Amino acid sequence: MARTSQKVPAALRTAVLQANRAIAARGLAKFTFGNASAVDRARGRVVIKPSGVPYARLRAADLVVTDLDGRVVEGKLRPSSDLATHLALYNAWPHIGGVVHTHSHYATVWAQARRDIPCYGTTHADHFDGPVPVTRALTAAEIAEGYERHTGNVIVERFAREPLAMPAVLVAGHASFVWGPTVADAVDTAEVLEEVARMAYHTATLRPDAPPLADVLLRKHFDRKHGPTAYYGQGGARR
Amino acid sequence: MARTSQKVPAALRTAVLQANRAIAARGLAKFTFGNASAVDRARGRVVIKPSGVPYARLRAADLVVTDLDGRVVEGKLRPSSDLATHLALYNAWPHIGGVVHTHSHYATVWAQARRDIPCYGTTHADHFDGPVPVTRALTAAEIAEGYERHTGNVIVERFAREPLAMPAVLVAGHASFVWGPTVADAVDTAEVLEEVARMAYHTATLRPDAPPLADVLLRKHFDRKHGPTAYYGQGGARR
Amino acid sequence: MARTSQKVPAALRTAVLQANRAIAARGLAKFTFGNASAVDRARGRVVIKPSGVPYARLRAADLVVTDLDGRVVEGKLRPSSDLATHLALYNAWPHIGGVVHTHSHYATVWAQARRDIPCYGTTHADHFDGPVPVTRALTAAEIAEGYERHTGNVIVERFAREPLAMPAVLVAGHASFVWGPTVADAVDTAEVLEEVARMAYHTATLRPDAPPLADVLLRKHFDRKHGPTAYYGQGGARR
Amino acid sequence: MARTSQKVPAALRTAVLQANRAIAARGLAKFTFGNASAVDRARGRVVIKPSGVPYARLRAADLVVTDLDGRVVEGKLRPSSDLATHLALYNAWPHIGGVVHTHSHYATVWAQARRDIPCYGTTHADHFDGPVPVTRALTAAEIAEGYERHTGNVIVERFAREPLAMPAVLVAGHASFVWGPTVADAVDTAEVLEEVARMAYHTATLRPDAPPLADVLLRKHFDRKHGPTAYYGQGGARR
Repeated sequence: MARTSQKVPAALRTAVLQANRAIAARGLAKFTFGNASAVDRARGRVVIKPSGVPYARLRAADLVVTDLDGRVVEGKLRPSSDLATHLALYNAWPHIGGVVHTHSHYATVWAQARRDIPCYGTTHADHFDGPVPVTRALTAAEIAEGYERHTGNVIVERFAREPLAMPAVLVAGHASFVWGPTVADAVDTAEVLEEVARMAYHTATLRPDAPPLADVLLRKHFDRKHGPTAYYGQGGARR
Repeated sequence: MARTSQKVPAALRTAVLQANRAIAARGLAKFTFGNASAVDRARGRVVIKPSGVPYARLRAADLVVTDLDGRVVEGKLRPSSDLATHLALYNAWPHIGGVVHTHSHYATVWAQARRDIPCYGTTHADHFDGPVPVTRALTAAEIAEGYERHTGNVIVERFAREPLAMPAVLVAGHASFVWGPTVADAVDTAEVLEEVARMAYHTATLRPDAPPLADVLLRKHFDRKHGPTAYYGQGGARR
Repeated sequence: MARTSQKVPAALRTAVLQANRAIAARGLAKFTFGNASAVDRARGRVVIKPSGVPYARLRAADLVVTDLDGRVVEGKLRPSSDLATHLALYNAWPHIGGVVHTHSHYATVWAQARRDIPCYGTTHADHFDGPVPVTRALTAAEIAEGYERHTGNVIVERFAREPLAMPAVLVAGHASFVWGPTVADAVDTAEVLEEVARMAYHTATLRPDAPPLADVLLRKHFDRKHGPTAYYGQGGARR
Repeated sequence: MARTSQKVPAALRTAVLQANRAIAARGLAKFTFGNASAVDRARGRVVIKPSGVPYARLRAADLVVTDLDGRVVEGKLRPSSDLATHLALYNAWPHIGGVVHTHSHYATVWAQARRDIPCYGTTHADHFDGPVPVTRALTAAEIAEGYERHTGNVIVERFAREPLAMPAVLVAGHASFVWGPTVADAVDTAEVLEEVARMAYHTATLRPDAPPLADVLLRKHFDRKHGPTAYYGQGGARR
């Protein structure tokens, strides 16, 4: 029973499996360009995609379970090479439950251009509380030793505030990482991020000096969906 | 019987349901980024999408019916948070029967760039009698109190003429609203607007100084479809 | 029997029906933004789409047959409003058998930008013997009287040479017309034109001063598919 | 039996058939804009698509087998007009097993712009060990005599190093050629090249002075997938 209780619940494995399939099905990750994970805080476990396995062939039993230091505790396959980045986020931010990494097209374009995605409109403000930030470049020393861990560290370093108000980041020259209360939320955020990045690309090329949304309107839209007095949707604060 | 006669006809509910599904099916609204409504002028009623309900799960019984002041008279769900904008248009313009709001990609890009969509060609002129206008930005006071109602007001303020000759607008930093004699017409207009906005984006980036269509040709194309001597199609004036 | 022999063959109606359906199915014409026709030279007849009928509902019996002066001789519907343009091409060029008009996206963008499509590469040179030309703008007098006929005239005026070596044109501020030995050939050319126009758009925006293909290479590619010594494909000159 | 043993194995024909169908199915080649081949080093044979045959109608029996000098030894159809280019690559590079040529959209755009595709990010670095190079233009003499062979020669000339570390090239004003250990690998590389070219297009137009990825990070990503100490995936070095 002790052994059983330490195993991550089947529901969490299913959620991670569905999330990894969803990033392929929704066009966010071609080939094996992406991975999703979830954390089980009670057990101190992370469930993540194995490295290099195509989404179409992925099964629940293929998922890899590690502890928060990255030691494999369940599964026969090697975990995603980005595991250490996921762990850095889980260890830094106790309120997040899932992490998704994709090379979705337009988000990656902004990461490659090393520019924050400006908040040009209310579609953006409905989901992100300001520009989506890009990290600094890693140093040669950070790349040489513990590259994936340092990728997580530069993400955390970029956030001086609550990460759930800005659940996405662009890693300079690389691609996006997103997170949320659950891995399913993170998948939705990844899809919204891609559309927001695509709108911002076309806005910036149509009018390079397009002004950002006024702060008061950004706040209005973010808060009507996410603030304490949210009135969008059928319940309390929700998307 | 009096109670029955005050209920909006099932056909109108069906039309609003189909319109909301159509904006998703035609790629004009991802997630819950859009809503459609229709007005029943005889009964003084508006039928609108409930807030935050995904299109795929939406049923006729979920639709919300309000009076023209926004009081809910049928339905258990909260109406779209954009209701007040729809109402402002219905109250200002007695000849429109349906309103559609979407964050369709290229129309939103022009709204974010805060530029009118120029009339670059006959595709545009076949449907819109001149550039598609963008509103002014709302003031901080307008955002703070009655934001959605003021959004409607700045749209109406932008039109000094017959709104059916220009059945679309871009709200600055936000997205598009379109309207028509019926909600089904408004959906068609939303789809045409998106294609016209996409053509204009590529024209403006290929040749930033591209000239607008000559006025005489704009008039020729608009009138051959919509004028009193229209000769396009199989009946009188039609699309 | 005399009456029967004057009717256009069913095969020609079928070809025109399929061509009109194909321009919708291949993404070249949304809504009713396009039309295809074929000529029966022996009988002096043109078969063309009726005006404003959606492609999905179009049937062979709906097609309109006219003589080369535009008088309807078979069919109950009004012919495409662009009929006079088609007729101008058939009357000017005895070797063409079909005409297709579409507002396909990128070809229309070049027409709106009023720029010839440069021959940037061999994809273009495999199909078009030089830049795809744009017409001059029509005068106000030409628009006021016989607009569609004059549209045909400015196309013909633009060609001082054999139209089958350059089976496409952009009408300034409007869209494309293409033609070929048969209407099926014209549909294929419309699809190639759209891809060539799309490649040229991205080339011109990536590198505004991109050089055109060298004349000698343009000639090599066009002739290996279309010249007297063509060696592409399994027969003589062919695509 | 001697005759039998000289015939290429059915499995190689199947691989070439599947590769030619895959480039159409994955959106890399419209119409007949592309061709794939494989080499049988033991027998000195190349299996290639016949010229001008649509992918949908292509059957294994239609494939053409030639020797490494281009003499047809099996098959009734004329080989792809690009055969001589494929042969030049097989003859120059003993370690490649398959070649794919497509006019895929964004790769062709960079070829038409005559620019190397810069390595802007890790998606690129995961697959290509530096910028994807563009060839010099062919001379008039090279075009006039043995055009397709000289196309192969300018590709080989462009590579002073191991071609498997950079399994793709852009032929100036033409399109891409890619290769790999097998023809199936080459198809995958063609698909990755197209996405990398598309990301680079949008990066370069969003920020024309976007910096390339730091060399140390390029090396890190390429080597974690392809180097002697690769740790991506479940085996040794792999994609």
